[in-house]
Amino acid sequence: MELSRHEIEAFVNAYTRGEIPDYQVSAWLMAVVLRGMTRPETAALTDAMLRSGEVLDFSSLAAGKVDKHSTGGVGDKTSLVLAPLAAAAGVVVPMISGRGLGHTGGTLDKLEAIPGFNVNLRVAEFRRVLEVCGCAMIGQTAEIAPADRKLYALRDVTGTVESPYLICASIMSKKLAEGVDALVLDVKTGSGAFMKNEKDAAFLAELMVETGERMGKGVVALITDMDQPLGNMIGNAVEVVEAVEVLGGAGPQDLRDLCLELAGWMLHLGGVAQTVSDGKRQSAHLISSGAALGKFRQMVELQGGDVRAIDDTTRLPQARHSTAVKSPAAGRVMAIQAEQIGTASVILGGGRERKEDPVDPAVGIALHKKVGDRVDRGEPLATIYYNDESRAQRARDLVEQSCEIGVAPPAKRPLVHRIIGRPGDKH
Amino acid sequence: MELSRHEIEAFVNAYTRGEIPDYQVSAWLMAVVLRGMTRPETAALTDAMLRSGEVLDFSSLAAGKVDKHSTGGVGDKTSLVLAPLAAAAGVVVPMISGRGLGHTGGTLDKLEAIPGFNVNLRVAEFRRVLEVCGCAMIGQTAEIAPADRKLYALRDVTGTVESPYLICASIMSKKLAEGVDALVLDVKTGSGAFMKNEKDAAFLAELMVETGERMGKGVVALITDMDQPLGNMIGNAVEVVEAVEVLGGAGPQDLRDLCLELAGWMLHLGGVAQTVSDGKRQSAHLISSGAALGKFRQMVELQGGDVRAIDDTTRLPQARHSTAVKSPAAGRVMAIQAEQIGTASVILGGGRERKEDPVDPAVGIALHKKVGDRVDRGEPLATIYYNDESRAQRARDLVEQSCEIGVAPPAKRPLVHRIIGRPGDKH
Repeated sequence: MELSRHEIEAFVNAYTRGEIPDYQVSAWLMAVVLRGMTRPETAALTDAMLRSGEVLDFSSLAAGKVDKHSTGGVGDKTSLVLAPLAAAAGVVVPMISGRGLGHTGGTLDKLEAIPGFNVNLRVAEFRRVLEVCGCAMIGQTAEIAPADRKLYALRDVTGTVESPYLICASIMSKKLAEGVDALVLDVKTGSGAFMKNEKDAAFLAELMVETGERMGKGVVALITDMDQPLGNMIGNAVEVVEAVEVLGGAGPQDLRDLCLELAGWMLHLGGVAQTVSDGKRQSAHLISSGAALGKFRQMVELQGGDVRAIDDTTRLPQARHSTAVKSPAAGRVMAIQAEQIGTASVILGGGRERKEDPVDPAVGIALHKKVGDRVDRGEPLATIYYNDESRAQRARDLVEQSCEIGVAPPAKRPLVHRIIGRPGDKH
Repeated sequence: MELSRHEIEAFVNAYTRGEIPDYQVSAWLMAVVLRGMTRPETAALTDAMLRSGEVLDFSSLAAGKVDKHSTGGVGDKTSLVLAPLAAAAGVVVPMISGRGLGHTGGTLDKLEAIPGFNVNLRVAEFRRVLEVCGCAMIGQTAEIAPADRKLYALRDVTGTVESPYLICASIMSKKLAEGVDALVLDVKTGSGAFMKNEKDAAFLAELMVETGERMGKGVVALITDMDQPLGNMIGNAVEVVEAVEVLGGAGPQDLRDLCLELAGWMLHLGGVAQTVSDGKRQSAHLISSGAALGKFRQMVELQGGDVRAIDDTTRLPQARHSTAVKSPAAGRVMAIQAEQIGTASVILGGGRERKEDPVDPAVGIALHKKVGDRVDRGEPLATIYYNDESRAQRARDLVEQSCEIGVAPPAKRPLVHRIIGRPGDKH
């Protein structure tokens, strides 16, 4: 039996106020995991969770407000590039991000590798940074979508995380509470993504796009590849280095390409580019002109970070030791299992297995080869940056196992598998 | 993924000790409701719940130990007949029963209509009564299957009652903790039963029979009719009156027939009758000889009840008022909706809507006509015994609505629809 909008709203509000016990909600969550929800129910749940707390209102800022959200991957530092890049183009980007969990990294952990960077701004400070520089990056606050925080904690301990309907409501409620007009979703698929196969990724993407549209927002989803890590660097400080490289016009090709794709959409949905192609062209220009990196520097400064570490990234935290993982054979790189690389980074201390674990900002992995590359026997496949010898060996073993060397490399996987959502009309 | 016996046992034990929170268990219960369990999982759950508390051991009593369990109906007073009847034949019947809930009555409430009757015996007293007279009837104790009590309370508030797997584990864990060798199950089907259709009833019956067999017990299930109330009386004291009538050789035909069927199986599984037919013949003889009624009288006395109320049932609680429900037309009784009759009895005060509600032992309903009977216009269909005028009117309306008068009565439904279980070989 379909629940009405009113029933869902009453239930979410009562749960948030502590008037419904956890055991009733967890039974309902399991029913949703196993049976799903209708589209109107999903939208009603998202809306109720969104309105369970404060909904930010940046209507005083004339520019279009757009955010980007990724479902999580390995080596995905696009947020660090996109927020300043889109802001440099005149789009307002009020970005609220999460921490790493499991094998995927988190934007907040990466930002905190910059000495002094404060991700815990209050709403008033968040607004001020946005007003001054057009982008700001913070963590979830207690005021925003408290229903999601409570529900997520319960899902985490009741085996009810894995439901596209609940994932959709969780993501969309938080993102739309940011007061954005539009949202670009980067839904990852492949061995390093939560959605291993493209069908599941597309289902979640369609659900989020439809839910966003029902709530009057412009939403587009790009199904992008996460079969091998994105870019070459996996960790925290090392990912900041790579993001700064891309903002400065360098960096690895795959990461640059994906950033330009996503930025193209952000600029288009934010109303500063007629088409996505135009948005990509503007973005490339803002990188080559230095405007994007300048915007990042400005945001770091406004959020308390040490800009000297951006100007000279050797000032970012550095691991004490490094070791190379060498290729056991000559040939071509057939595969790099992204999830294993992500897990190796967690083992080094760069990620967390439990929410309360601390993170070592300095450790990480640099990949010297990507899928399809030629490699000689004994040539380094990767370098591991570590502080703890005992952890390094386990991480090394995992990185070694994750790289498959063969003769004929697989067909190149496209960076963007599919685009979902009506804004695609103006591609 | 199937859970192992060990995993299920660890989980049930930890929950019973309070080491797993309700919210995790309710999510698991909902998963079982929606996905079911395998047969080995069902048996493992039953076994773990059974062994969560004390398992009674009556091996010191040489005779076969057999109990009967009904899934609940309206006017079902067979337990009051069967325990003394089987005991009179030499079978030991350690019967632990429940209270009424919703539209179905409960054996404990009926027994407590007998002044002084104590259903709250401790295990030692229970054993003494069994040793002296071969049967005893009590309520669930804190020592027996505590996991079931805890799980049932959680199911009640999380919408997870309706699962044949959980119903099976709940019933079988309690019944097998009684230390019986064999069990006769009376699984009701029809408008007044929890399982409205025969397919669901048969599924539950097969599950319970297989679970019992996996645990080394002799189990048979009779799928019996509950489309109209069983017998003529619905209430508490009035049902004791009818049970005493059947024990004395009188009483309504359907109730007598079902009691003989079930007793035949109890005697057969208890080892005192070669065949079920032989068990029925012995039972009929024990009724006509007065031995069965004598055994009931003895049990009442041993459990503190006033035997004068058995010898003269007008000494049982009597309602102050009565009113007849008259037929609006001449014809035949087409149907008597058992659930509505049960609900009318609850409205009068004879049952409970919530566990903590008190029960009025005196009120009830007497049916003067059953399905198929001829009736004249203005002839009484039923009499309502009541203490509270305001409740009487609502009950009257329900009883009136529940009786359908027409011209051609439906085909007579069999009393026993089906017999499930291997002991049927010797039918």
